Amino acid sequence: MSVSLSIEAQDGHARTGVLSTPHGAVPVPTFMPVGTQGSVKGLSPEEVAATGARVVLGNTYHLWLRPGAESVAEHGGLHRWSRWPHAMLTDSGGFQAFSLAKMCKRDDDGFEFRSHLDGRRCRLSPEEAVRVQRLIGADIQMQLDVCPPGGSAPPVLREACTVTTAWAQRCLDARTRADEVSAVEQAMFGIVQGGTDVALRLEHAAELASLSSNGRRFEGLALGGFSVGEPIPAMHEVLGEIAHRVDPMRPRYLMGVGTPRDLLVAIGAGVDMFDCVLPTRNARNGQALTRDGKITIKNARYKDDPKPLDPACTCPACAGGFSRAYLRHLFLCGEMLVLRLLSLHNLHLYGELVAGARAAIREGRFASYQKAWFDRLDAGDSA
Amino acid sequence: MSVSLSIEAQDGHARTGVLSTPHGAVPVPTFMPVGTQGSVKGLSPEEVAATGARVVLGNTYHLWLRPGAESVAEHGGLHRWSRWPHAMLTDSGGFQAFSLAKMCKRDDDGFEFRSHLDGRRCRLSPEEAVRVQRLIGADIQMQLDVCPPGGSAPPVLREACTVTTAWAQRCLDARTRADEVSAVEQAMFGIVQGGTDVALRLEHAAELASLSSNGRRFEGLALGGFSVGEPIPAMHEVLGEIAHRVDPMRPRYLMGVGTPRDLLVAIGAGVDMFDCVLPTRNARNGQALTRDGKITIKNARYKDDPKPLDPACTCPACAGGFSRAYLRHLFLCGEMLVLRLLSLHNLHLYGELVAGARAAIREGRFASYQKAWFDRLDAGDSA
Repeated sequence: MSVSLSIEAQDGHARTGVLSTPHGAVPVPTFMPVGTQGSVKGLSPEEVAATGARVVLGNTYHLWLRPGAESVAEHGGLHRWSRWPHAMLTDSGGFQAFSLAKMCKRDDDGFEFRSHLDGRRCRLSPEEAVRVQRLIGADIQMQLDVCPPGGSAPPVLREACTVTTAWAQRCLDARTRADEVSAVEQAMFGIVQGGTDVALRLEHAAELASLSSNGRRFEGLALGGFSVGEPIPAMHEVLGEIAHRVDPMRPRYLMGVGTPRDLLVAIGAGVDMFDCVLPTRNARNGQALTRDGKITIKNARYKDDPKPLDPACTCPACAGGFSRAYLRHLFLCGEMLVLRLLSLHNLHLYGELVAGARAAIREGRFASYQKAWFDRLDAGDSA
Repeated sequence: MSVSLSIEAQDGHARTGVLSTPHGAVPVPTFMPVGTQGSVKGLSPEEVAATGARVVLGNTYHLWLRPGAESVAEHGGLHRWSRWPHAMLTDSGGFQAFSLAKMCKRDDDGFEFRSHLDGRRCRLSPEEAVRVQRLIGADIQMQLDVCPPGGSAPPVLREACTVTTAWAQRCLDARTRADEVSAVEQAMFGIVQGGTDVALRLEHAAELASLSSNGRRFEGLALGGFSVGEPIPAMHEVLGEIAHRVDPMRPRYLMGVGTPRDLLVAIGAGVDMFDCVLPTRNARNGQALTRDGKITIKNARYKDDPKPLDPACTCPACAGGFSRAYLRHLFLCGEMLVLRLLSLHNLHLYGELVAGARAAIREGRFASYQKAWFDRLDAGDSA
């Protein structure tokens, strides 16, 4: 099998183990930095790997429109092109088609929209999503799905699940056909929708888990449609109800989430994989995430602060001895280096969070690990 | 002495040796990357050092206005603050006061201008330039000088030399007074003006070379007022006439110059030190400099080009296997990583150019080294 999960320890619903991929073993729980356009913004592949990341996410929508999936394929695929030697996952492009593109319309056959770059008319069907992701060549593809906004009415949520299931089958079938003519072995994950409706979520998860094509099922199951506008406590509650009930033999991937707190809750609920732009996007907006809460680096309180962002952190910004005062100066000057140092810092924090979680689960002390983080984050937020 | 030059080999007028500084030995000829606001744009100190650079230039004007020289001093000086372990040089601030600030007026006592940041009225005298540079704490200070634009009339050039000499003495005297109350030992370089008037240049160089205060002279002599609008062939010709006649016991520093071709000409004329924003600024504009001429990375001809910028280059962009096609993609997407990779590439080229020159001089083959570069650059430019 292209991608498979081996669980080595469990503590409550939290679990740790190894995801085997064609590009190496990935210890889970894992956080996947987002390399939107073929690059984790500002960072070299070595720097990304040094944060502990072993999977990077590429955005199909962006790469499809520019430079084009064929172009990426001609250069040997996204791994080779972007010099990332470890595992890689691509989303289906549907989420960006809906959120970024102009005049996006959905019908039974997929999305029709105009490119946000040049207005060109594009069509993203389940089959096209599979074809494009095959060309990009990540280790893991995602099915095309329908992701309704938070707070959608029950009929909207239900219809999204129905269409997502139909597209799931079409994606699996398209992969089967593509496999016949390709040497590339790619895993594919299904995407569970259902908003904050626990029963609908569980029903949809079971439905996707049962699908197959030519004897091959989804290698993993993702939880989509979270952190899309619903209240965060509601997300945490639903995750606690559903995550551990999603097929335990397959990796569970919570898409586009979230804060350190979200990760700790979701790991406790049984989630194995995460991606989110938050650590890198917030860094570019001048925000460092620490165990003691957020540091908005431009604040005057850091003007003469000789301390590193986090004295205990091993990232190049903190271990390198760059003071908050210096980082603030660079940020106020618009110097690129600070965006890179903050990005490294934030990704290191995420890397350390999941590495610590893996150790804690293995040692049967995940609840106290989680609580220690919550206590420090709470104290930091109220400081 | 705080900074001293030891010449180890000479080949024609070209020479190589070691500049001793409080922050280590600097092999010359050397190229000094510009860290305008306390950071070589986009690069970490380790990356800058890996290009072979052993001196970084800091801009006094910028650091004086933001965060303020006192603030830099409180953090232990610019070396410590910006985490640069090797030698450092600061300019006097005069050039930026004139070129960047608003409503700059000069009188006998210095420059009066309004900050380009907040309109605040500032005054930069020779004494203030020394005080501010002392606080910043580089290994080498530059005197405050008057730099007339290229093509200035003879009386303007002559007056600039007269005022520069007067300010040179005031800077030396101010250092003597500062030395009495400070533990910091800083070298200071004088700045030769005179435009393209060879006789005036030689006269001014001799004048500055003879100045002293309390028995201490300038530790080095710089050639200012080049590459300020005069024709490049005129600059090359004048350099050939004057550089080797500037006191051979002291380092000769050609300020703000230039292209790889300029460096090769100037090294042949007897120059030891260079700084220029060109390699980093051009990188941020998407231009890579190579032995075979310039690569404007956004050009369509690189769309499918799998080659590195320069197959023989050892920089992280080239040795890291990043293709021109990928770099072009990143540039078109506005991805930060490409600015960093191009900056590294260009600074590596400069580092390799001066390292190669040092070896060639030592081996008595500088003329053929220079010619080989010129031939490839010419072929590239005409390609």
